[in-house]
Amino acid sequence: METVFGIAERLSPKTADALFDRIEAAIPTPEMRPRALFDRFGIEVIATTDSALDDLKHHDAVRHSGWHGRVVPTYRPDTVVDPHVLGFSGNLERFLAMTGEAATWDGYLNAHRARRAFFKQCGATATDHGHANARTENLSSGDAALLFDKVLAGKADASEADAFRGQMLTEMARMSRDDGLVMQIHPGSYRNHNPSLFADFGPDKGADIPTATGYVQALKPLLDAVGNDPALTVILFTLDETAYSRELAPLAGHYPALKLGPAWWFFDSPEGMRRYRETTTETAGFYNTVGFNDDTRAYLSIPACHDMARRVDCAYLARLVADHRLDEEEAFGLARELAYGLAKRAYRL
Amino acid sequence: METVFGIAERLSPKTADALFDRIEAAIPTPEMRPRALFDRFGIEVIATTDSALDDLKHHDAVRHSGWHGRVVPTYRPDTVVDPHVLGFSGNLERFLAMTGEAATWDGYLNAHRARRAFFKQCGATATDHGHANARTENLSSGDAALLFDKVLAGKADASEADAFRGQMLTEMARMSRDDGLVMQIHPGSYRNHNPSLFADFGPDKGADIPTATGYVQALKPLLDAVGNDPALTVILFTLDETAYSRELAPLAGHYPALKLGPAWWFFDSPEGMRRYRETTTETAGFYNTVGFNDDTRAYLSIPACHDMARRVDCAYLARLVADHRLDEEEAFGLARELAYGLAKRAYRL
Amino acid sequence: METVFGIAERLSPKTADALFDRIEAAIPTPEMRPRALFDRFGIEVIATTDSALDDLKHHDAVRHSGWHGRVVPTYRPDTVVDPHVLGFSGNLERFLAMTGEAATWDGYLNAHRARRAFFKQCGATATDHGHANARTENLSSGDAALLFDKVLAGKADASEADAFRGQMLTEMARMSRDDGLVMQIHPGSYRNHNPSLFADFGPDKGADIPTATGYVQALKPLLDAVGNDPALTVILFTLDETAYSRELAPLAGHYPALKLGPAWWFFDSPEGMRRYRETTTETAGFYNTVGFNDDTRAYLSIPACHDMARRVDCAYLARLVADHRLDEEEAFGLARELAYGLAKRAYRL
Repeated sequence: METVFGIAERLSPKTADALFDRIEAAIPTPEMRPRALFDRFGIEVIATTDSALDDLKHHDAVRHSGWHGRVVPTYRPDTVVDPHVLGFSGNLERFLAMTGEAATWDGYLNAHRARRAFFKQCGATATDHGHANARTENLSSGDAALLFDKVLAGKADASEADAFRGQMLTEMARMSRDDGLVMQIHPGSYRNHNPSLFADFGPDKGADIPTATGYVQALKPLLDAVGNDPALTVILFTLDETAYSRELAPLAGHYPALKLGPAWWFFDSPEGMRRYRETTTETAGFYNTVGFNDDTRAYLSIPACHDMARRVDCAYLARLVADHRLDEEEAFGLARELAYGLAKRAYRL
Repeated sequence: METVFGIAERLSPKTADALFDRIEAAIPTPEMRPRALFDRFGIEVIATTDSALDDLKHHDAVRHSGWHGRVVPTYRPDTVVDPHVLGFSGNLERFLAMTGEAATWDGYLNAHRARRAFFKQCGATATDHGHANARTENLSSGDAALLFDKVLAGKADASEADAFRGQMLTEMARMSRDDGLVMQIHPGSYRNHNPSLFADFGPDKGADIPTATGYVQALKPLLDAVGNDPALTVILFTLDETAYSRELAPLAGHYPALKLGPAWWFFDSPEGMRRYRETTTETAGFYNTVGFNDDTRAYLSIPACHDMARRVDCAYLARLVADHRLDEEEAFGLARELAYGLAKRAYRL
Repeated sequence: METVFGIAERLSPKTADALFDRIEAAIPTPEMRPRALFDRFGIEVIATTDSALDDLKHHDAVRHSGWHGRVVPTYRPDTVVDPHVLGFSGNLERFLAMTGEAATWDGYLNAHRARRAFFKQCGATATDHGHANARTENLSSGDAALLFDKVLAGKADASEADAFRGQMLTEMARMSRDDGLVMQIHPGSYRNHNPSLFADFGPDKGADIPTATGYVQALKPLLDAVGNDPALTVILFTLDETAYSRELAPLAGHYPALKLGPAWWFFDSPEGMRRYRETTTETAGFYNTVGFNDDTRAYLSIPACHDMARRVDCAYLARLVADHRLDEEEAFGLARELAYGLAKRAYRL
């Protein structure tokens, strides 16, 4: 059994104390230091997700520490593109201030360009966008500027705030086309569903619930603008599994700019990953997917996550071989691609 | 082969007459009397579903008959909470009259409390609510009283009638928290889809068709009010399987008050039950489900229904064991829980 | 390995030239002539889909050529019933002109009757309708006539155009009841999703993406009108797999006029066909489905398509046998029905 602490026993009240002691004894050892685990886990790159407002000083420290490991930031601008976010107007102010840009639509776009360039210089290869839905917009430059002014003045209503967020996905896609950062869209979570939990403990405490998410209409403005550009990579994730066979695989099969991210969050599980392959492969193929990346905040879970993903993918490949839908030799090649090659190329690592 | 009549042959034109004769000969025998079958089937409890207007005299007769069997009622108030129901205003009048309550919002709520107490005294442990959708509301007491007056006066439009039905789900949840009756919600059936069948034969003749049902927004008002209370049990059913992995398992995994009912109606079938486990277990676990209960009106089908559910659940557990996701010993324990323990505890039997 | 060219090698850069040469050498041989392949493939009937405006002269030529093969047309009136179609008003004019009917609602319906009769006389047994959604309407004759006048005058807005298209599905169902042509509905594709592809190359170039499609409300007007008539056959297809277990199987299980078409387009694939059986059989049974028909434009793919469908269906039957849900003997009979009998009877061939 592959585990970081070499535990073979089942967790139970009987084994709890002994296992607790064993873990406690292991943690302070040199073998359990983050950099030692980085090597032990065979990690080539770790990407963090960082606010557009982050100064990336910790990334800077790692990069200049003389250590060989590669840890890169990812540009996540949600807090400065989504007017629904708490504290948005203060964020916007800081964002313009830190880039020295004017409080205009053009200035605001330039601020993004500057921050993206800075992230890229610190090693970033990707951006990440986690919106409540997949809505995109493709307004004329004039209309976008008017909308920005309204948002800036705090006078945008809920529907205008949605439109602005949607417009910014398209702007981010355009900038990705220009600067080569891979764009990731993670839509469809109803955040902070439990108000008393939110009041007591704040956001990101497990009260985020998936909702039905439509992609075909929602992504059209973005795709109309840049979907046919093979130099651009937009990676789509979903919390609505019904979209895989109906919407996402057909879209990714068609548009050169689109690829499908792996099963995510509630679905990076054996059944979830299996359904992902079963519902996407026949339409989108393997090469419109990006291999596996886990979304973990738990460093020690990384080997188990990747081990599971590889087992599920290999079980799927094995079934294709047993059904004579793939030759064994092809499956061997694909197994490596799904585990390694696709992710490395899709994220331009 | 497990069947009540010990039939091993396949049904066919050839065997029809002989089987018909055998069944006809068996029916009048003492072994086929309902109470004999109750024992033969190993039934511990049967729960019926009864209108809020029912006097439960048949339940009373059973309880005072000296027979050892346990048959309990379930409080189903649809006909006095849903203004869309044919004859609603007459129902409301009778409901207030039978409890001696005033035709006010407070009187109406008291009438429910009184009827619930009476059902509970007759053995009820649960309530059941079968609405067209999962909408709930959490109006202020004043707004609810105004809405009640409109409904009482027959002046509520379709949208107000929907809101009232939604408000009553939340009120029922509050009463469940107070009196301990387990609340079951069965939403999402488009009733009487076939108007000529309805005109000729009335309701409940097989023309009820499932519809897409959203839970994340719809249940929020009820959950905001009482979802965090571990003393309350609300059991959710669905006719929209897409909601299992996307909405219901995440909600049940999060809210202490929520549990998932078993695969229901069109889905209490081998494939339906299998999909239920595959799409809920990884997020909600087994202990946020309530074991199996069938919804049958056919007394003789009870052993076959439970036999099927147990086989499907055991096949699922066996797969987890074969995949090394469960130990065999854990699966043995779970098999008993899924067949027996979870239902007994969830329904407070 | 069953292939038209007897290729056993895997396609690869290494084998490409030799295989290209072999195919090029085979194509001009007498064995590869369409009629020779018709016999070699064991085809009994091929049905084409033809515009309501088509003069069917090629069908006429085939029928009077002395050749034994059966090739029949199918009445597809989309271009004269859907006001959203490019060139609709010219189509309508030609349609009325070619039938000599007046530009009135009654004249227009008579034009359809005349064209349907002509198609039927040329061998047609079915009609086909590919709309953006499944909406149907059942307007009074007076309202339908007013709507037709608006459509004819080019004054219908988008919502009225939708209503007209919906009304025409019900009219087509009524005519099918009268003339016996089997009605097929293929809804739910967002056509021409990629505007630059459309601008450069026109329609039907692979930029058609499925969308979520509701049937329960949408089909009700048509079903209210003719759904209970067992003499009528309406075959439903879908690009939204979630509708199978939730909506389509229950509807087909209930309404005598409805049957389910096989897995279609993105879903006529091993996993898609398997899911189709798993999600429809328990509610609709096998006999409310119509066997397999492929939708191919590639003549040479016909044997492979049918071979795959038969393998997937037989694998499903084999599982039912292994689970003791079917006897082996029943499965043998069903295998033939799914491959042959159901299609032949459903399409009245």
